[in-house]
Amino acid sequence: MSNLPRIGILGAGGRMGRILIQAVQQAGYELAAAVERPESSLIGTDAGELAGIGKVGVQVSGHLQDVFANVDVVVDFTSPVATEQHLKLCREAGVAMVIGTTGFSDAQKQLLAETAEHIPVVYAANYSVGVNVSIKLLELAAKVFADTVDIEIIEAHHRHKVDAPSGTALMMGEAVADTLGRNLKDVAVYGREGHTGPRDRQTIGFETIRGGDIVGEHTVMFIGEGERVEVTHKATNRMNFASGAIRAAGWVIGRDAKQYDMKDVLNLNNI
Amino acid sequence: MSNLPRIGILGAGGRMGRILIQAVQQAGYELAAAVERPESSLIGTDAGELAGIGKVGVQVSGHLQDVFANVDVVVDFTSPVATEQHLKLCREAGVAMVIGTTGFSDAQKQLLAETAEHIPVVYAANYSVGVNVSIKLLELAAKVFADTVDIEIIEAHHRHKVDAPSGTALMMGEAVADTLGRNLKDVAVYGREGHTGPRDRQTIGFETIRGGDIVGEHTVMFIGEGERVEVTHKATNRMNFASGAIRAAGWVIGRDAKQYDMKDVLNLNNI
Amino acid sequence: MSNLPRIGILGAGGRMGRILIQAVQQAGYELAAAVERPESSLIGTDAGELAGIGKVGVQVSGHLQDVFANVDVVVDFTSPVATEQHLKLCREAGVAMVIGTTGFSDAQKQLLAETAEHIPVVYAANYSVGVNVSIKLLELAAKVFADTVDIEIIEAHHRHKVDAPSGTALMMGEAVADTLGRNLKDVAVYGREGHTGPRDRQTIGFETIRGGDIVGEHTVMFIGEGERVEVTHKATNRMNFASGAIRAAGWVIGRDAKQYDMKDVLNLNNI
Amino acid sequence: MSNLPRIGILGAGGRMGRILIQAVQQAGYELAAAVERPESSLIGTDAGELAGIGKVGVQVSGHLQDVFANVDVVVDFTSPVATEQHLKLCREAGVAMVIGTTGFSDAQKQLLAETAEHIPVVYAANYSVGVNVSIKLLELAAKVFADTVDIEIIEAHHRHKVDAPSGTALMMGEAVADTLGRNLKDVAVYGREGHTGPRDRQTIGFETIRGGDIVGEHTVMFIGEGERVEVTHKATNRMNFASGAIRAAGWVIGRDAKQYDMKDVLNLNNI
Repeated sequence: MSNLPRIGILGAGGRMGRILIQAVQQAGYELAAAVERPESSLIGTDAGELAGIGKVGVQVSGHLQDVFANVDVVVDFTSPVATEQHLKLCREAGVAMVIGTTGFSDAQKQLLAETAEHIPVVYAANYSVGVNVSIKLLELAAKVFADTVDIEIIEAHHRHKVDAPSGTALMMGEAVADTLGRNLKDVAVYGREGHTGPRDRQTIGFETIRGGDIVGEHTVMFIGEGERVEVTHKATNRMNFASGAIRAAGWVIGRDAKQYDMKDVLNLNNI
Repeated sequence: MSNLPRIGILGAGGRMGRILIQAVQQAGYELAAAVERPESSLIGTDAGELAGIGKVGVQVSGHLQDVFANVDVVVDFTSPVATEQHLKLCREAGVAMVIGTTGFSDAQKQLLAETAEHIPVVYAANYSVGVNVSIKLLELAAKVFADTVDIEIIEAHHRHKVDAPSGTALMMGEAVADTLGRNLKDVAVYGREGHTGPRDRQTIGFETIRGGDIVGEHTVMFIGEGERVEVTHKATNRMNFASGAIRAAGWVIGRDAKQYDMKDVLNLNNI
Repeated sequence: MSNLPRIGILGAGGRMGRILIQAVQQAGYELAAAVERPESSLIGTDAGELAGIGKVGVQVSGHLQDVFANVDVVVDFTSPVATEQHLKLCREAGVAMVIGTTGFSDAQKQLLAETAEHIPVVYAANYSVGVNVSIKLLELAAKVFADTVDIEIIEAHHRHKVDAPSGTALMMGEAVADTLGRNLKDVAVYGREGHTGPRDRQTIGFETIRGGDIVGEHTVMFIGEGERVEVTHKATNRMNFASGAIRAAGWVIGRDAKQYDMKDVLNLNNI
Repeated sequence: MSNLPRIGILGAGGRMGRILIQAVQQAGYELAAAVERPESSLIGTDAGELAGIGKVGVQVSGHLQDVFANVDVVVDFTSPVATEQHLKLCREAGVAMVIGTTGFSDAQKQLLAETAEHIPVVYAANYSVGVNVSIKLLELAAKVFADTVDIEIIEAHHRHKVDAPSGTALMMGEAVADTLGRNLKDVAVYGREGHTGPRDRQTIGFETIRGGDIVGEHTVMFIGEGERVEVTHKATNRMNFASGAIRAAGWVIGRDAKQYDMKDVLNLNNI
């Protein structure tokens, strides 16, 4: 019998589900269960074959209830409605959760918070370890450079993204602005055209690139005289979210019933 | 007696003048004269010491007329009013010119064109060899990719630049748009904010970065599915303009009286 | 009845097979068949669900023979042994092929060449449109810059890659060296450590980065005084190979029986 | 009468001296003196004109002794022999120093240390604020990522540099290796060629680019699965050293007699 963390992946047939299965393997953990909607044509296939990593001997199941005995924690990147059901079932079964579903209503967020009083739940806006580290670096750089540099944030995403700048770019801008005592709403510049006049040092510029299937790139420049420092995060596929989530899954097993985020998982507040 | 091209630098005490002196040395040509306004405190100093390359035995002169006997060509990056005088003097002396002065009036451009009927004159919007090459590359890439990619142009310049995007960025955008049969005015996007909707493939995005003393950087991205091609030009100091101008100076000596540009100097139309 | 190219994907359950299915959809072509080994647990599943793009109504088949009636061309990124069988079957059926399998023996390459006397076959070392374009750009840039710049080639690949530099980096180096009349074997530099002395302009430097799961990045720098031009290709996932292969599939239908490569597909020799 | 820091620039006619004069102006401090060797042809010229920033009313002097009455601090980026004399003169005059001269003998370093018992002296290996900040960021990133990523250090310098990797690259490598408990000598890889095998996570790769007149660029990559974080420092001209030195000059006036470095000036140990 193995002592490895036993992970269950919900939404196993979706794009993110398959990558989560790969991430379990890369982390060296045990893929203990894979669940999909009961009407899927994928029920009964081998979860490893489905994820493109070869047979692993775990068949895709149609019902979460059937796999609770095998798992220590489930990872749920599905839909708000599905996650609502999973929260209830996991609470009953006393099984920990890592939740990456987006688009919750306020009521659903409330349900999540209540559930976390009974089982440990990790729920993060962004599971990427790199993004979380980058924001720490930005805060430090802003603190030392203070008002001696010009700050610009360049981001690139795929052609289907309908909003700009990205949530992560805005999060980075806020981290920098907060450190410098500026209000991002007052100082953000989202485009430059025509006669702009010389740059105002207090501003923070955003440049938004859109094209192809770029997963997500962010660079923050601190530009002085004769030099600049750049902090860059590049996501090249969803594996970075998946491996962060699986790291969270390994971390949350056995913790107290509580709602956690990635700062807890990475211990970023104490570094 | 040397057969090297004998170059005279006008405005030798200005920032560009000093870099032109360095570029003459790097090209292995002969710095034959250096001229500054007669009231400058720099008259009589050694032109090499002035340019920071050590003594070269050429003293800064206060009058262009005094140096014509020594030079085959003069390089003039000064002011419109000064260049007006230089055009007249060079025509009388039958000495070739390379002109990098900006901000001419129509009358001054007319004088330049008329002068070029009597002496050979190189006059280019941009003396950078790299910029001229880059535009060739962009035209070729646009031709092959056609409408299968998204095109974005990112440029960065110093904090004092008062217009956006840069003239070079617009020149690149026009080269791409012309190749694709698009009208840049119709398809250019200069900023993205809020709900933008998915990207329209016909658009060409411009992202303008401003900060510190960045000399000039341009990247054009051709972004497809799973890949992208980027063509980047980075100017790190004015030496790239200076060495292009000195290359033009070496090239123009002995040519027919005519107005030339960098495409002639680089023979880009026949490659 | 549709007039769209009807594409069959072999090895449909493999990683590349699934991406090829996505590429068919993105190209707007008809996914007409998907084939996997008969013993796979994936036989009978919906090919679209398998590829993560939702149900498309095509079930994964265990036998290529069963699908010939439905397809105009098959795309084969499998194994040398499997491709050997596919070549024979396609020749009998008179169906065109696009082949991305690697690792052929000489005998297998010979079989491919012979088969191409009876059916049209595209077989390319690299299906990426971007890589093929980049090499064209490098040749042009090398021609204009000639010996006025220093040339460096930086590439990055995943941690599992066992050779260095990459085949693509060497191909780029050869394109540049050939243009400049240099022999790559004589001028290549693969690392710098300790007292190297000043750079010899004739050399071409390679810098090889290895880490994580980087798919493949190549930058060639042409570095002059005060400026540089860079040509960069970034592959971010296998979709760039897949979309190039599907572009080749659409192109090859109805052509004469012959062996083609991507230069034919992209018409690069006539641009 | 002004309360601005009154700065004297030694070696005012050298390349670095002229940039230091520009940096004094940019910092808004008072250029109180400019000194050059007495035999220079530049003695008596206006220091501002010499530095290309227009007349400032300060004439270049041939003797340090003549200017002590005007200055609070002198900035010395000259030669070891010259600095030896300056140390003695400044100690006698009780004037603070910022020293950027390189190439000291042990005896000269000893003299510097002894002088710092009588006057405040800033003496740093690297005056760039950006380099000092970058090293802080690298230590933090290494701490959080630990052994979950591959680390690579890419640097680029001009064609005349005779050693590799750069001192700054090695300093960055040591900062990372120390944080991770690795010995840089054991884990550094300086080039990759031929059959290298898969990457060993414990290694730290260095890639050295040489070309043109690149001032100095360093990027450290932390490469994980599906993402990477990069910290980049780009020096584009010597102004970054000059402005760091002038910041140090403003900071050191009125301090206790002691030897300081840039960590003191930037207060990096307490952030």
